Amino acid sequence: MTFTREQLTEQIIHAGQFLYAQGWSPATSSNYSARLSSNQVLLTVSGKHKGLLNAEDILATDLHAKSLEPHKKPSAEALLHTQLYNWRADVQAVLHTHSVNATVLSRLVAAEYIEFNGYELQKAFQGINSHEQPLLVPVFENDQDIPRLAEQVQRWLDMHPDCQGYLIRGHGLYTWGTSMQEALRHIEAFEFLLACELKVRACTAQHSVHQDNAYPLND
Amino acid sequence: MTFTREQLTEQIIHAGQFLYAQGWSPATSSNYSARLSSNQVLLTVSGKHKGLLNAEDILATDLHAKSLEPHKKPSAEALLHTQLYNWRADVQAVLHTHSVNATVLSRLVAAEYIEFNGYELQKAFQGINSHEQPLLVPVFENDQDIPRLAEQVQRWLDMHPDCQGYLIRGHGLYTWGTSMQEALRHIEAFEFLLACELKVRACTAQHSVHQDNAYPLND
Amino acid sequence: MTFTREQLTEQIIHAGQFLYAQGWSPATSSNYSARLSSNQVLLTVSGKHKGLLNAEDILATDLHAKSLEPHKKPSAEALLHTQLYNWRADVQAVLHTHSVNATVLSRLVAAEYIEFNGYELQKAFQGINSHEQPLLVPVFENDQDIPRLAEQVQRWLDMHPDCQGYLIRGHGLYTWGTSMQEALRHIEAFEFLLACELKVRACTAQHSVHQDNAYPLND
Amino acid sequence: MTFTREQLTEQIIHAGQFLYAQGWSPATSSNYSARLSSNQVLLTVSGKHKGLLNAEDILATDLHAKSLEPHKKPSAEALLHTQLYNWRADVQAVLHTHSVNATVLSRLVAAEYIEFNGYELQKAFQGINSHEQPLLVPVFENDQDIPRLAEQVQRWLDMHPDCQGYLIRGHGLYTWGTSMQEALRHIEAFEFLLACELKVRACTAQHSVHQDNAYPLND
Repeated sequence: MTFTREQLTEQIIHAGQFLYAQGWSPATSSNYSARLSSNQVLLTVSGKHKGLLNAEDILATDLHAKSLEPHKKPSAEALLHTQLYNWRADVQAVLHTHSVNATVLSRLVAAEYIEFNGYELQKAFQGINSHEQPLLVPVFENDQDIPRLAEQVQRWLDMHPDCQGYLIRGHGLYTWGTSMQEALRHIEAFEFLLACELKVRACTAQHSVHQDNAYPLND
Repeated sequence: MTFTREQLTEQIIHAGQFLYAQGWSPATSSNYSARLSSNQVLLTVSGKHKGLLNAEDILATDLHAKSLEPHKKPSAEALLHTQLYNWRADVQAVLHTHSVNATVLSRLVAAEYIEFNGYELQKAFQGINSHEQPLLVPVFENDQDIPRLAEQVQRWLDMHPDCQGYLIRGHGLYTWGTSMQEALRHIEAFEFLLACELKVRACTAQHSVHQDNAYPLND
Repeated sequence: MTFTREQLTEQIIHAGQFLYAQGWSPATSSNYSARLSSNQVLLTVSGKHKGLLNAEDILATDLHAKSLEPHKKPSAEALLHTQLYNWRADVQAVLHTHSVNATVLSRLVAAEYIEFNGYELQKAFQGINSHEQPLLVPVFENDQDIPRLAEQVQRWLDMHPDCQGYLIRGHGLYTWGTSMQEALRHIEAFEFLLACELKVRACTAQHSVHQDNAYPLND
Repeated sequence: MTFTREQLTEQIIHAGQFLYAQGWSPATSSNYSARLSSNQVLLTVSGKHKGLLNAEDILATDLHAKSLEPHKKPSAEALLHTQLYNWRADVQAVLHTHSVNATVLSRLVAAEYIEFNGYELQKAFQGINSHEQPLLVPVFENDQDIPRLAEQVQRWLDMHPDCQGYLIRGHGLYTWGTSMQEALRHIEAFEFLLACELKVRACTAQHSVHQDNAYPLND
């Protein structure tokens, strides 16, 4: 199914309303995109309230993250979006969110990735048919140098063609889908799994000493 | 009171809107059913957004979980629904949900069942008249082989004619009622009790070593 | 200000819509009342969905909790309401709710009362002008024998004329006001304080050994 | 951009609806203001339901917190608002809220300030361009003597011209912006950071012994 720019714009605006209402895109954070054609994407511009987007807040870029509408500034992280459209031709939508749970779990986990195991909801992802089939989610170090961060991501994507999403430490979640609807389902599934992992930790008070050292919290 | 197919369809659609809004049926998970007659049930089809159900997303099956509408695929777990209608003639509705709390508590509890005790809200269930009358909720191991999982459930039901619902480990909750309204009240009561148990654990940080071994969480 | 039966009925219905939406009156739990005259109160009938009350779900009783509308059954806890209208002539509304936080904290606290201290929000209660003025909230043992429970409550009320509300262990909260608006403000303030106390405990994992013995949680 | 009194009143009313719905202004707590001119501000009057404000609930004061509408009583904390308008000529709006998280974290932290570090969302504040640029938030002792509290605040402001907001222990948050929109973004960003810090603590159960002594919690 192909959509017009108007339809994709509507999908992005509705996604923003939903994700903001869930509390996953606070304080003008987050950015969303949809594939417009084989070599163009629509992307949210920088610094807008994600629950109140309108058509003016969305611009077209090429697959190198270069704005095709010079008067509009794409999100600083545009390259992390276009990278995914280049990686897989069937990616139609990319959502980047900043939930409390994604932020916290990414800081508590000292390892290079989180492995979700034993959750029925893992089956919300394409290609996962059992709760016994692990879901690996890499956690990259945050970096204000986006091309350098994109290189970290690319190394993982090249080795994990079944990757479903990733976390950036202290920053947020990236996931995608073969439609906006699927990308939203993936967000819901990831947020569910993140919430579960944190509740397990809160009830068992596992210490994560390495991460505590990496990000000392004063008191 | 008997309802028409149209009325039961409306009840299922409204149940989905409520349960999705509560966050208990995320990412197209969950399935719901209602008894249509002595030997037929209405059931949600597989893989739909539970907050956005319409009449096309519901099909009729017989009490062996066989679809009576060949072009529609019932939920993979249809057998777990029809089993309950066969077990008790007065069951009119069955709700299966995937909340964070049901998922987490079912993983933290190593025992075969959870015993709720001392909660006034236990009285929300038929036949429980005091907070001192314990409520037993079995926790079954998750299994992608639904007939095998149904056998586990049947053994418990046969020995516990007063069973009010059950958990599947890392997966979710099944409960039912003599009306959709009662099934929804049972969901609310179970979710309340699950939330309480988890908060008690978060505040007292009980360790659940056995379960940690069963489902190792990497970091 | 005096209100008609119609106005007070509206106040109770609106209170139920608000309290249910907050999750503080789940699964047909809770009951609410308002003073109709010097010797009559309006009270919710037993077992209704508190978010969907209508005028038929409310009945008048005298101040001994005797129904003045024989075809309607008052809440089992009517006596706990009328007791408060007898205790203080200026009480115009009583709200009893069943939140997760009231339930959990009342179980974790082994002492006879909780003392809130150092919270600016204590000032939401009449007569409290500083965060340094402690707020004492008694916790009574739950009892299905309501007259016996009312005796426990009465002993506390007689000794604490400034009492603002109380908890019943594993059951819920009672509070009141000189108007429905004030009673609702008190609910909000109590729920805020309960939420704070539980978060403090979750972050510091205080063990409450006595209560754990009183209500053993299996796993 | 300058706004009329009517427009600023609307902004304050809408801010209240949003902040109350988030649960950050419960039980008539909180107060909000907007700059009306170089020497006047609009401020909420004392003790109103913040989700139901109307134009009558807002009054003008001078920059010494003196009411210009003698029949209306400004919030007791008016001085904490006007202090900020005096401090920086570009401050256009000040929001003071009472969230559970602000209250709890301010009590758990024994130090004079909280240092947020490693959160991408720190960039929601003007002048912060990296997660590696720490955000310092002072925590002042609560005091019913507002002029004395204002002195504490002033000492910090004088030494920290880049201050973005502050906490009062057991009481709440003050933040501001060069527009109401920016002040609301700052609230969202602070609430996000507070929620993250508390979740980290709940999962790692850090003990905060000093604060426990300062505010003993009975049980």
